[in-house]
Order: sequence, then C-alpha cells, then structure tokens
Amino acid sequence: MTDQKVFIHEVGPRDGLQVEKTIVPLEEKIRWIDGMLDSGIEIFQLGSFVNPKYVPQMADTDQLFSHYAKGGNKPDGVIMSGLVLNEKGLDRGMQCGVEMFCMGVSASETHSQKNTRMTPAEAQKRIIAMAKTAMGAGKRVQASVQSAFGCGFEGPINPEKVLGIIKEYLAAGVKNISLADTAGHANPLQVESLFSAIRELDPDVEMACHFHNTYGLGLANCYAALKSGVLYFESAYGGLGGCPFTKLPAGNVSTEDLVHSLQRMGLRKDIKLDRLLDVAKNVSNFFDRELPGSVLKSGSIVDFVGGK
Amino acid sequence: MTDQKVFIHEVGPRDGLQVEKTIVPLEEKIRWIDGMLDSGIEIFQLGSFVNPKYVPQMADTDQLFSHYAKGGNKPDGVIMSGLVLNEKGLDRGMQCGVEMFCMGVSASETHSQKNTRMTPAEAQKRIIAMAKTAMGAGKRVQASVQSAFGCGFEGPINPEKVLGIIKEYLAAGVKNISLADTAGHANPLQVESLFSAIRELDPDVEMACHFHNTYGLGLANCYAALKSGVLYFESAYGGLGGCPFTKLPAGNVSTEDLVHSLQRMGLRKDIKLDRLLDVAKNVSNFFDRELPGSVLKSGSIVDFVGGK
Repeated sequence: MTDQKVFIHEVGPRDGLQVEKTIVPLEEKIRWIDGMLDSGIEIFQLGSFVNPKYVPQMADTDQLFSHYAKGGNKPDGVIMSGLVLNEKGLDRGMQCGVEMFCMGVSASETHSQKNTRMTPAEAQKRIIAMAKTAMGAGKRVQASVQSAFGCGFEGPINPEKVLGIIKEYLAAGVKNISLADTAGHANPLQVESLFSAIRELDPDVEMACHFHNTYGLGLANCYAALKSGVLYFESAYGGLGGCPFTKLPAGNVSTEDLVHSLQRMGLRKDIKLDRLLDVAKNVSNFFDRELPGSVLKSGSIVDFVGGK
Repeated sequence: MTDQKVFIHEVGPRDGLQVEKTIVPLEEKIRWIDGMLDSGIEIFQLGSFVNPKYVPQMADTDQLFSHYAKGGNKPDGVIMSGLVLNEKGLDRGMQCGVEMFCMGVSASETHSQKNTRMTPAEAQKRIIAMAKTAMGAGKRVQASVQSAFGCGFEGPINPEKVLGIIKEYLAAGVKNISLADTAGHANPLQVESLFSAIRELDPDVEMACHFHNTYGLGLANCYAALKSGVLYFESAYGGLGGCPFTKLPAGNVSTEDLVHSLQRMGLRKDIKLDRLLDVAKNVSNFFDRELPGSVLKSGSIVDFVGGK
C-alpha cells in the first residue's frame, strides 16, 4: 500500500455528462462544480473539446473553463483539466485557460476508429505532438490509454499493445499516464499486473486510473490500482457516465463511493464527503432518477453509526 | 493469489430471501435451486432453522431439506447447508437431512442481542456445544463471526474480539471459519488484515467470507479475501438479501457478479454462468423489480464480445 497522498480527479462534468440525453445548462454545471470546489478534491475535468455537433453535451466547455480561469471561486491548488482529441481542441483549450490537458490513444483499433476516426498509431503520433506543444507552453499533461483492459467491440486487449503506447509517451517526456477501462472489462488481477508492468518501465511514472463499473468491479479495480502504486483516481459524481463511442456505455466509479472507501482505509480523510454527497443528490434530482452510487443510497458509515 | 480451488456457497435461498416481504412458495424456491444445481456451485444454503413467527420466510426450511435429502435432482458432491441458531434448530436440521451446519456468533453485543437474545459469550458457549454435537454426528460444520468488520449499531468492531471468538472455534476443533460482514462495513485492507491474522492462528484453517454490498465494496472485499487465501465465498442470486436484525440490511454480493469476476481472473471457468443468470432473472421476475446484480443488467463480457 502506498503511503503517498492519493488524488481524486473528478470527471463528472466531462465523462459523467457526455452520454446523458438531457443537456445540462452551464449554470447547473457550475453549481455542481462549485459544490465540490473546496471539498478537498484536487482536479476537476470540466469538459472535452470536441465537435458540438457530435457531443452537444460538451458545447459549453470553453465557457466553463473561462468562468474558472477568470477566478470563479476556485481555491488555490485546484487544477482544471480538459480532454482534447486533436489540435483544434488543444488550441481551444489554450485559449480558455485549461491547466491540465488530458489526451489519449485507444488500444483498440475499433474503438479508436469510432472515437477519433484514426488508427491507434495515427492517434498516437498526433497525441505526442500535442503533448509536446502543451508541455512546451508550461501546461500539465496526462496521457492515457483508452480501452486498456478490454474492448466492447474487440474483446481482450493485448497488454503489450498498451505498454507499447506507454513507452512512446514516456519517451516523449510525459510522466503522468492514465489507464482507462472504457468498457469496464478490467479485473483486479489484470489491473495489478498492468500497472506493475508500467512501473517497471519507469519507476518515476505517475500513474492514474479510470474505471467504469459496468460489471460491478469498479471499486475492486481501484483497490488493486491503489495496491499497485496508482496515485490519481478518476471518478464521477453519482457514478454517472460512459463513453458514447463504446459499445456498452456504463457509469464511472462514483466519486462518493471511491472517497468513502479510501476514507474507510484511512486515506484522504480530509475530503469533505458530505459535499460530494450533496452534489450527487443534486445531480440525481436534476436527472430525476436514481444514480448508480452506493453511498448515495445508503449514506456514509460514519454518519450512520454516529461518527464512529 | 491462491492456486487452490475456490468454492461458491450460494446463500440466496436463506440470506437472500429472509428479508423479503413476499414469501416465496416452496415450489418456487425449489425451481430456483434446481436451476443452479448442476451449474458447478458446490454448496447451497437452503434456509435457516428459526422461529417461523419471527422469520416466516424460512418456515418451509425443513420441507426444503427433506426434498433434497430424498434425492431431488441433487448431483453427487453438492452439499446442502443450513443455518442454525440454537439446539432446537440443530435437532430440526438433524432430522431433515442438513449436510453442513452453519452457526455463528456476532462480534457485536447489540447485534447479538437483537439476533439471538444472547450476549456474544453466551452465544459462543452454545454454538461450540452445538458444533461438537454436529461434528460428533459426522456433519460438516462451519462456524462464523457475524458483524466481524463493523456493526450498524455499534460502529467499529475490535479485531481482537473477532480473533478471540475464532480461537475458541479452533480450540473446539472447528476448521471451517467464516467472517460475515453483516452490516457491509468491511473494507479490503481490513479484510486482508483480519484473514491474515486468522491464518496466523492456524495455517490449516479453511477460511470463508460473506460480504454485503451496502457501500459498493462487495467485490473489492471478495478480491481482498481471495488474495488472503479465503477459499469459500458466500453470495446470493441477484445480490438479494440482508439480515433482518441488522440496522441497514442490504444485499449480499451477487453470485453472478462474483462468479463472473472470478472467471475474468481465470478461476472457476467450469461454473455455468448462464444458469446463474437465468435463475437471477427468474428471481427478479418473481419479485417484479430490478435486483442489485451488475452482470444481470449488463450481461457477461464473454457473451458480449462473442466468446472472447
């Protein structure tokens, strides 16, 4: 187990909303983010710079970044991240104040084509050039491998493919590497094995994980990641989410459940779980349905047993 | 990780149904058990021998055992287990053909009183006498510690309390020891720590686990148990269940989700997952509601990607 600090990367505003039929107004997005801003969570992924024709849920991403770039009520130390798929997105992100650029290559040919109309090799070449541009401009960069643990179209993904992509990232000087389980196919043994292999490539790598709870293994995979030295955990309020270009989109690991489980293990007790639960409740009310998160239904253990 | 065979103990007919308002008719219970009998699952907990006044859901337990004791269509090697709380239950179980007696002591004073009207110390004395009687009659015995990881009434449970109960079990010659997370409070670190401590008490102990998914950690805890050398996993079809005498009853780990996750890790690929899913669907139809299980909603990964 790590004794280093672990970080939560809230991807609700991006991955949580991109597959929702109802488009959330800008003010509502801001209200939810504001509700969590001083919770102790370090990174917020506000949106993705994609074509609003295809993903209208993200059409106001530039405005959202501008709001917080101008101040908003963002505390010191909080980082606003944005997902970019191409140079145009990178330009947009540079102009509206993105602090951390997240970009990725899918290890699955089929998913890569559907998501970006590029092969993984083509996507990687572009992503590395973009990463260099962003780093050159003094921005933080996180590079990811999507469909790293399996693909809804192709089934199993050869780990060598994943490691091949990561070697290129490392060679380009990118130190923060995320593995995304886009299809939810990961199992905890596989998670331990793949992250251990990454650490062998470079012991100084900063590892991040992004799990979907499609088959109920989200928190099990987070635990395996934690044991493997992963320090950055991506999750979404209420357990919303899913990639619109995967075969069976299903919710991200829920932020409240993740933080609750970390706190039960003695980690990140500084995070204000009640703030996260309040936001998840608001999100649930907005969409007028029950969300997948467990703690949202049960309440936290500490509240339940009177602070014990 | 263990390279030993792990076993599934289906507790749906007992723990799955005991908290349901609708009483399931005997024929329906048999239909669901029959649907899983040749799935490859080894142990079925058919019911508990409790007072039907308090738990009417279990009123037909003796008849259910008699049905399979007379043959039913029970394959060789399948074991029928029953939960007993007192001597009267043990007598009933002896008469109707229970093959494995499960009995336990709650590590929580409050839960013990509510569940059995005895203190843990009183309960332990009786349970050990009962275990000796059952073993003397050539029966298998599993002894458990309920509320082993926390209690909805009392909060945290001192692990020394749990280990104290287990020492008495081991001294009495009981080798199969189950830890039940009645309130769902367990976290995977705690699971590893407690099971490791048990193995230090006796390296030949056969360890079993029983998790509830109240806070979303069911499969994470199963993974931690697996890593700690636990060989017996208790779960319920569809993720039904909960103890009626705990403060916040919530579902067991779902059998389909558990088997699916084991199979993703290369274990128990012999179990016919489709049978489990069919039964869970029938259970869901009977109660006319969605059950908590994830794979029941998503389908299995192997089916989804065409056998890959």
